[in-house]
Amino acid sequence: MDGFALIAEETIGADDSRPAKLEVIGRSRPGLRFGGQVRSGQAVAIATGAPMPAGTDAVVPVEFTELKGNTVDVRTEVTSGKHVGRVGEDVEAGRTMLEAGRLLRPQDLGLISALGTGSIQVVRMPSIAVVVTGDELLSPGTKPTDVSIPDVNSPMLAALIARDGGIPRVYGPLMDNFASLKKLIVELAASREIDAIFINGGSSTGPEDHAPACIRELGELLAHGIAMRPASPTGFGLVAGKPVLLLPGNPVSCLCAYDFFGGTVVRKLAGRSSSMPYPVIRRRLSAKIVSAPGRVDYLRVRFVGADEVEPITSSGASILSSTTTADGFVIVAADSESLDAGTWVDVHRYEIP
Amino acid sequence: MDGFALIAEETIGADDSRPAKLEVIGRSRPGLRFGGQVRSGQAVAIATGAPMPAGTDAVVPVEFTELKGNTVDVRTEVTSGKHVGRVGEDVEAGRTMLEAGRLLRPQDLGLISALGTGSIQVVRMPSIAVVVTGDELLSPGTKPTDVSIPDVNSPMLAALIARDGGIPRVYGPLMDNFASLKKLIVELAASREIDAIFINGGSSTGPEDHAPACIRELGELLAHGIAMRPASPTGFGLVAGKPVLLLPGNPVSCLCAYDFFGGTVVRKLAGRSSSMPYPVIRRRLSAKIVSAPGRVDYLRVRFVGADEVEPITSSGASILSSTTTADGFVIVAADSESLDAGTWVDVHRYEIP
Repeated sequence: MDGFALIAEETIGADDSRPAKLEVIGRSRPGLRFGGQVRSGQAVAIATGAPMPAGTDAVVPVEFTELKGNTVDVRTEVTSGKHVGRVGEDVEAGRTMLEAGRLLRPQDLGLISALGTGSIQVVRMPSIAVVVTGDELLSPGTKPTDVSIPDVNSPMLAALIARDGGIPRVYGPLMDNFASLKKLIVELAASREIDAIFINGGSSTGPEDHAPACIRELGELLAHGIAMRPASPTGFGLVAGKPVLLLPGNPVSCLCAYDFFGGTVVRKLAGRSSSMPYPVIRRRLSAKIVSAPGRVDYLRVRFVGADEVEPITSSGASILSSTTTADGFVIVAADSESLDAGTWVDVHRYEIP
Repeated sequence: MDGFALIAEETIGADDSRPAKLEVIGRSRPGLRFGGQVRSGQAVAIATGAPMPAGTDAVVPVEFTELKGNTVDVRTEVTSGKHVGRVGEDVEAGRTMLEAGRLLRPQDLGLISALGTGSIQVVRMPSIAVVVTGDELLSPGTKPTDVSIPDVNSPMLAALIARDGGIPRVYGPLMDNFASLKKLIVELAASREIDAIFINGGSSTGPEDHAPACIRELGELLAHGIAMRPASPTGFGLVAGKPVLLLPGNPVSCLCAYDFFGGTVVRKLAGRSSSMPYPVIRRRLSAKIVSAPGRVDYLRVRFVGADEVEPITSSGASILSSTTTADGFVIVAADSESLDAGTWVDVHRYEIP
């Protein structure tokens, strides 16, 4: 505090009518300790952040004092240690300050600086290769033609990966060609710069769907075809020990597959919680929804009224705007055949503040 | 879909026992339309994403067909438009796709690409000058000496500003000197690179507190001294029309002042909601807390038991670890004198997933 550093016991009994009178023998400034020794009957002017002069053990704030020439009247009692920051008051030697695995908060960075540590070991941000394939695809943001459309998934996936703590590296859009896809996957799997590979498009079972066979040939295809809608043509495998995720080309399926599987891969590699980052809110369904048993549904919904959500049911997996007009999604469990209007559901909100 | 493009009405009555037999006259690939005209009795092999050949109006999925040489047996009926993506099915001309002011989501970037638009107008990320002053301060992460300590606030403020959509630009730590502070503020206020100025340290009323007088001299000091704990030595003003925030040097006060005022400035300038980004959760107080009436308290709390929070009361404004061990904070309103144990309170969680 701004005030006077002194010997606390010399203020015993001091008040407005009978102030303790002390000789001011110098000044202690932040970063510059007063050089002398303070003895009985003496005080040193001090500012917040300044070191305590030798011999002193308390500070009287300036508002309880009056300076007259070289003498200060101290009009209050202080106890030893009052208004003095103690070495170790914030951080004690031997105490664990931050547990391993913690997602660092802004104040943690302050604390780390307080420890006199300029760097710490952290989990490396994982680099995720996003390989986009499709003969009909143009670069993102290009005007569509009568036979070709811009790649819409790589800008979306790049933003999702960055949000979840990864570094996206986009390759493509590439032509659907087995040999060139295989060559690229071999390179990426061998690269120390890449931690996981997401292949977007060609993930189904048609003649132009090269990704599953490619992974089968280069490594292991551990899962292919998921009992959910959309996003059933999703696959997962390993090449040279690296996770490879096959994401469907239809944009809503792609988002759904990312939300269920891609985000988990990125967040795990980034050392974060693997759970979805969306805030969850309870709402009632405004209308009945029907779901095939044995299949998980990713149901886009919109907020309506005070506490309800309305299913956006009229749109297929290619209608990306169903996810931009939606406020969030509801996961309809595989064992649900239908949910009646009025049922309370957990809504995963797309909006992350 | 992968299958055959054809004229829907030619499949009327087709089933397993009486398939429609069509001549396959070519193939339509993604990005490459079949060149010819399809007439009655004909079909074209097609893959997902390929353009519809002239004359066709539906696709029969491959699993309902059998190819024998140049002839395909179609074993199901399809209606006109079946399995065909319609121009405008996702985005209709004239429809507003994204409202101005929206915080863009990953899928919004996909949608923008789908529109054939490579760039859109967005709110510029504001650059926030963080001016750190204090004669006792060393650069962040430096080992403390017996009289000097590392700056802990600028790493924290930089992370907070980045989190809220701003670009932090740190100046300092600087010596507490009125003339040099004034010179820097004049430069920053005139710079087109800087949108707001946060001065950290020297924000109170002592002899080394130059920031308030500096702002008063260069512009307007609109508020100085806030009825809250910690963070009472907070100030706000304008220099050359630019917001200037005075943040206290004590680290907990600094965090509190940022949470209440700094974040609002950054998020507003960044075009975001001005409300705090912390998720809010309801919990009961495990112990009574006392608060001076007329003053807002920023009470750090820790989760305990199933649904309670424990106040961290033993620590002052200099104990930064009280914010790293805390799970969040409770805002105790100015008109509250005390809150009994068991009171339900809104906890702002520091952890943002």
